[in-house]
Amino acid sequence: MILLISCPDQPGIVARVTGLLFEAGLNVLDLEQHVEEGSLFFMRIHADTAGMRITGEELEYRLRELMELLEAEMRLHDPAERPRVAVMVSSEPAPLQDLLSKREAGVLSCDVPLVIGDRDVLRPLAELYGVPFRHVPMDPNDRLAAEEVMLGLLDEAGAELVVLARYMRVLSAGFVDRYAQRIINIHHSFLPAFKGNRPYHQAWERGVKMIGATAHFATADLDEGPIIVQDAVPVNHQHTVEAMIQRGMEIERRVLAEAVQVWLERRVIVRGRRTVVFH
Amino acid sequence: MILLISCPDQPGIVARVTGLLFEAGLNVLDLEQHVEEGSLFFMRIHADTAGMRITGEELEYRLRELMELLEAEMRLHDPAERPRVAVMVSSEPAPLQDLLSKREAGVLSCDVPLVIGDRDVLRPLAELYGVPFRHVPMDPNDRLAAEEVMLGLLDEAGAELVVLARYMRVLSAGFVDRYAQRIINIHHSFLPAFKGNRPYHQAWERGVKMIGATAHFATADLDEGPIIVQDAVPVNHQHTVEAMIQRGMEIERRVLAEAVQVWLERRVIVRGRRTVVFH
Amino acid sequence: MILLISCPDQPGIVARVTGLLFEAGLNVLDLEQHVEEGSLFFMRIHADTAGMRITGEELEYRLRELMELLEAEMRLHDPAERPRVAVMVSSEPAPLQDLLSKREAGVLSCDVPLVIGDRDVLRPLAELYGVPFRHVPMDPNDRLAAEEVMLGLLDEAGAELVVLARYMRVLSAGFVDRYAQRIINIHHSFLPAFKGNRPYHQAWERGVKMIGATAHFATADLDEGPIIVQDAVPVNHQHTVEAMIQRGMEIERRVLAEAVQVWLERRVIVRGRRTVVFH
Amino acid sequence: MILLISCPDQPGIVARVTGLLFEAGLNVLDLEQHVEEGSLFFMRIHADTAGMRITGEELEYRLRELMELLEAEMRLHDPAERPRVAVMVSSEPAPLQDLLSKREAGVLSCDVPLVIGDRDVLRPLAELYGVPFRHVPMDPNDRLAAEEVMLGLLDEAGAELVVLARYMRVLSAGFVDRYAQRIINIHHSFLPAFKGNRPYHQAWERGVKMIGATAHFATADLDEGPIIVQDAVPVNHQHTVEAMIQRGMEIERRVLAEAVQVWLERRVIVRGRRTVVFH
Repeated sequence: MILLISCPDQPGIVARVTGLLFEAGLNVLDLEQHVEEGSLFFMRIHADTAGMRITGEELEYRLRELMELLEAEMRLHDPAERPRVAVMVSSEPAPLQDLLSKREAGVLSCDVPLVIGDRDVLRPLAELYGVPFRHVPMDPNDRLAAEEVMLGLLDEAGAELVVLARYMRVLSAGFVDRYAQRIINIHHSFLPAFKGNRPYHQAWERGVKMIGATAHFATADLDEGPIIVQDAVPVNHQHTVEAMIQRGMEIERRVLAEAVQVWLERRVIVRGRRTVVFH
Repeated sequence: MILLISCPDQPGIVARVTGLLFEAGLNVLDLEQHVEEGSLFFMRIHADTAGMRITGEELEYRLRELMELLEAEMRLHDPAERPRVAVMVSSEPAPLQDLLSKREAGVLSCDVPLVIGDRDVLRPLAELYGVPFRHVPMDPNDRLAAEEVMLGLLDEAGAELVVLARYMRVLSAGFVDRYAQRIINIHHSFLPAFKGNRPYHQAWERGVKMIGATAHFATADLDEGPIIVQDAVPVNHQHTVEAMIQRGMEIERRVLAEAVQVWLERRVIVRGRRTVVFH
Repeated sequence: MILLISCPDQPGIVARVTGLLFEAGLNVLDLEQHVEEGSLFFMRIHADTAGMRITGEELEYRLRELMELLEAEMRLHDPAERPRVAVMVSSEPAPLQDLLSKREAGVLSCDVPLVIGDRDVLRPLAELYGVPFRHVPMDPNDRLAAEEVMLGLLDEAGAELVVLARYMRVLSAGFVDRYAQRIINIHHSFLPAFKGNRPYHQAWERGVKMIGATAHFATADLDEGPIIVQDAVPVNHQHTVEAMIQRGMEIERRVLAEAVQVWLERRVIVRGRRTVVFH
Repeated sequence: MILLISCPDQPGIVARVTGLLFEAGLNVLDLEQHVEEGSLFFMRIHADTAGMRITGEELEYRLRELMELLEAEMRLHDPAERPRVAVMVSSEPAPLQDLLSKREAGVLSCDVPLVIGDRDVLRPLAELYGVPFRHVPMDPNDRLAAEEVMLGLLDEAGAELVVLARYMRVLSAGFVDRYAQRIINIHHSFLPAFKGNRPYHQAWERGVKMIGATAHFATADLDEGPIIVQDAVPVNHQHTVEAMIQRGMEIERRVLAEAVQVWLERRVIVRGRRTVVFH
């Protein structure tokens, strides 16, 4: 069982929560806890339920009771469950392929029931891995119609998480809010540098000596959502824009896959514009 | 208060320890816990004692009682205390200077009451920072005599930790055992590659593309002690041995200072040849 | 045209070589040159042949004449040519897939006419990318028979380079010598640390704080060939051997692909146990 | 002798320049050359003058003649010369100390004849290393008066390069232009992210997962000058602003010292907003 808690800080939270788990027969395997300035308490507990002496419902009931006392938000997950993850793409194969092959290799513990493309380019790649591909073109003058279709597909597929793997369209606030904190986007720059279009061109013009990638939760405010993972690599004057794009691809797919992995392992809590990512 | 615990795993350890702290009026600020395969339990707790309702002696008594039940080893530290750290050097100034300036800048919370040199080269540097320097030459034919003198000096200075900042002499098992897990050495390679002498020459000969540095606890078995911190940087065919040495110096001092810092913050537990270093 | 030269150093080499090219109507686009201690001269020139006023044969003749004077070894390549690269695998899909997808994306400019497996596991992956897969099992008691078959296949496929993408068998000196400086192997550790089998297990036992990967030319002496590319990433006490393996996979495939890329771009000169890798 | 050349590209430049050097009896030790899209040619040559058969004046005359033909800009340096470098500081000791100790250790081949502080805080540090310290307070209402004084001091000290080692005042366009491409500034963020004041506070608010530092040439346009060196390190939710500042300090001083080093080794050519930094 994985338990994520965030609440105002006060003495005794760890003792009460772990005391409750102990009485119920659970054994704590990993616990990480953090109090942020301004008195916010965050905790992730991974506990073994093999010796649990009460039902799951009873455990959840007792935890919810305690959370009310603590004015806490709680999320409870079964590490054995495989979340359903939908991927949205345009034409760039690298990040999609990385996600699908890591799922196949068992690095990512999830099911991928659906790939949506605004272009019909990556169908063969999705199908190679046995994943249904749906082509939903987007008419820029009627974005909402396409979004309606996509929301229906995501719903039908039971998607808990949506990954934008170089999906090149802007999504409406309505769409994003429907999957609040459940849409992960990859931006091909080291945010907040080079927001918007053609970040590698911007980076080349500015003559930077490193390029990066940022995986973040999508919000209505483009490129402003809470950051989950970032990384960067050196470049030099010999790198053309094309070479930067190639080099960036490697880091983008790594950063995106890592963000999906920490999300699947239930290591992420969002707090305003910031994230807590437990180790 | 900082509490470090290691013991065989069993259900309820976190609950019991944090319950005890809660009852005593302490507030947990940071808790990190980890269970290793083979059922070893490790935990670090940083708790605020502002609201403590019992004496420090009473708290320690209750904790020791619980530790006996858990067959645990415990260390209890006051984060306000400034451990006394002695530094042993030969002729290389960079790591000594880095330690002394980081202590002065408040990055390292410790006192440095003593620098020992087997050569009399770094006295001015030590004295610039107001630290007494003692020259203890070592006659290779009578190592133990010199060690006797040094043990006396360390004792007198009340050194809790000894840092070998490029001290180029081999110490006897007797010396090392007296300060078991309390001597930190910097080896100028990415151990276990290039043990022994002149690692940069070895690295150049082998044509490696990265060089590194390793901070580890000294043991009787040279270059085999538990590793605390490692890092590495790229090199290429243009780097001569001298350029590697220069480039390595930067990483050595960083790695050594970081190892001293995590030790001072009581984040390190040694377990056989491995270390647990809490974040 | 790409020209690689290595020879004893003497004044005037650059002037003579570039003078010859200029007279023949070529324009130097990139030139990198390096003199190593002990007076060894290395140079790589990438020149534009659009304005060449003599035939390719004539150019090569003049260059060879000059090389004789300089006692130089020379290699001459057409950057437009796509070298034929064979891949040898066992059962690990990640590095093979990375190579094939990077070739498809145009990151690696080569043809892959053949994948050989000592097990019949990765056939579907190879065939997905349209590459013929040949299963050549190896009887440990009759290694040479299998190698005979493989040499025949490589010959037939016209392989200029052989990539061991986690091929788990030891090859004979005879085999390796046939493709001297043309077999690239990936070793899943930061050589020379953890040679031999199960390096991640060794790394875990030793308690290192970084793990790495090494791409090198295969030689009869296992894990001792000239290193082309290395990289490393941090690990900590929470990483089990399995987590290290997963984390290592990412770095292995990156390091291997980069080594193949610099080889394809004719940036590598071997000199004894060391390599010059031009930027 | 070190020769830096930038000019419009045309065939034969390398041949003509190295031919000229060869005839004059020089031996090329390192040559790096690069042609950028848009046909700009850049080259750095390090040549041994031990066998030179003409005078320095004659060599320079011949080179200047050739440069006129090529419409090239040329810089000619003696690697044995030690450029005079002035440092400007406010109250932060780390980067100043790093520069002074690296000069002392021979890593930076330069003289430091002057440290200017707008506060009188770092005088003892400068004087420890035997460098004269001049306190020039700046009245925000009469900036130019202070700048006048400083220009006089820099002139008197014969400063070829000015290093802003966390100098916290804004300099006028007039001042900056006087030392065009000869003022190196360190900005404590990964530019272009977090320009302006308190970048670590900005970084914390934005919740980034890496922090960086940027060494660049100062221009009238603050934080917009050509970048010389950048680097970045990971941070996480546990890092307070203060921890980021501490962690950033390490990277700032490293990046600044590296930028000064490549400048001293005459490896930098500025081209608009971009720099070519030869390896």
